[in-house]
Parts: sequence; structure tokens; C-alpha cells
Amino acid sequence: MWRRAQPFLGHLMKGYALTLEKTIFHSQGNLFHAMKSSSEGFKGFGEAYFSTVAKGEVKGWKKHLRMTLNLLVPVGKVAFTLRGEGEDDGVRVELGPDNYHRLTVEPGMWMAFEGLDEFNLLLNLADMEHDPDEVEKAPLEQYPLSV
Amino acid sequence: MWRRAQPFLGHLMKGYALTLEKTIFHSQGNLFHAMKSSSEGFKGFGEAYFSTVAKGEVKGWKKHLRMTLNLLVPVGKVAFTLRGEGEDDGVRVELGPDNYHRLTVEPGMWMAFEGLDEFNLLLNLADMEHDPDEVEKAPLEQYPLSV
Repeated sequence: MWRRAQPFLGHLMKGYALTLEKTIFHSQGNLFHAMKSSSEGFKGFGEAYFSTVAKGEVKGWKKHLRMTLNLLVPVGKVAFTLRGEGEDDGVRVELGPDNYHRLTVEPGMWMAFEGLDEFNLLLNLADMEHDPDEVEKAPLEQYPLSV
Repeated sequence: MWRRAQPFLGHLMKGYALTLEKTIFHSQGNLFHAMKSSSEGFKGFGEAYFSTVAKGEVKGWKKHLRMTLNLLVPVGKVAFTLRGEGEDDGVRVELGPDNYHRLTVEPGMWMAFEGLDEFNLLLNLADMEHDPDEVEKAPLEQYPLSV
């Protein structure tokens, strides 16, 4: 469970959270906050990596058993679909510089994501280093991407 | 001083280091490592933020008194110029997806950076949260950007 604090936007459902992160626009260049050690959803730093996803491509389904993900989309637009194990309902959120939130995903959630713009970049700030033994995969047909 | 370990590329001079980070290219999308908690140059996680810098724009000079920076350029191309306090010599490195290294900058280094492509994005993985009291600034004319 996440503590309630501004600018935390609250649960969409158990297992994940959206937190508004600050953006500062300037003619020389912009600044987008990603996460602080004092942020909601921060559970330690294990690894950071970027993923790109081409337009119309979908990566997933994946479920992490131990890793908490903190996801940012500074370029493009990415649609994330999240489902709890064995749950029919889920949620779909579209993130990018125009809807700039950090998406915290707790272990046990199934996630797939799709590139919507021509170039889409996401950063995962994970609380542990990559371990293939804590990741389960399922074919895309297993769950619908729409909710 | 940094311990020597592959794929660590070694000091360019005292105060900073370049470390090759892994890139994986795939038709669906790419994966670029940024940093692990076991990486050379990792000194703890305090804050992560993105900066964009427009083509031909230069941000700097700045010197951090306590923060260690770990910089990645997943999009575009950014030229970093680094100088030790009171030192005539310095170094200029151009980073981007085609020359994908993590640049670790220790406290006490003067740094400026310039956008070289149309769109340039950099990530700073810092070991402390932003504190305006630990940053010194100097005008661009103070030091040359070339070395």
C-alpha cells in the first residue's frame, strides 16, 4: 500500500500506482524528474535500463515475482496494460511527456506495453538487478490488451 | 578511484570515468542498460532526472560539491566538457546511442554540455537528491568548451 501524499494520484487498483512527476520547460532544454529516494514507490535501487518499443509493437506479457518497477516515458507515448493474476479486469494507461507520471508496478502484476508514437522510450528504475528466475512470461493471446 | 573491471574503460583523468554499457538491438525495440547497483561508479541512489538540450545550446558550467553524477544519453548526441578546478586541460566526450557509455562525474569537476542532434536526452542517476547549496555555477565564458 502507498502512503497518500501529493502529488501521488492514488491507486487505480491494488498492485500499482501513478505518481505525477515534475516537468520544467525552458527554451534551452527541459527537465523531467524521474524518481527520488524519498518518492512514493521507491523500494531501493537495483538497476536502471531503457527500452524502446516500435510503433504498433507490443512487449509482454511479463510478470515479475520480486521486482518492483518504476516506469517513466520521457519520449513518445507508451500504452501499458496491467492485470492482477487471475483477474478479469485490468487497466490501460498511456504515458509520455504530455501525460508525465511515474508508473509503479508491484510484483505479481501481469504487464504488456505497446508503442504508440514513431519513437518511444521508457526507463525502468528497478529495485533489484535483473534475474531471469523471477520473471514469468505469457503469450500475448493470454489476455486482451484493452480493458 | 575506480576499481578496474571489464567493461570499465579506465580513467580519462582524475574525477571521472567512462563505462561501456550493454545495448541489445531487436526489431520490436531495443534495450540499453543504464546502471546497476553493482556497477563501477555507483555510490547510492538519490535521484534520477532527465534533461533535454536543444541543438547548439550549451548548459553549464556547473560544479557539484557533493553529488556524483552518472550520465547516459539514450537519444541524440551530447558533448560533455569536463575540467578539474583550476586545471587548464580537460576532456570532451560525445555520447549517444552510437557511443553508448555511462559517464561518471565525481564531485569537484566543472561540467558543461552541448546538444549536437535535433533532439538530445540525457539521464542523470545521482547519488543524492537535488540540493542547490552543493552546486556552484560559472558563466560559459569562464572556460573554453573545446580542449
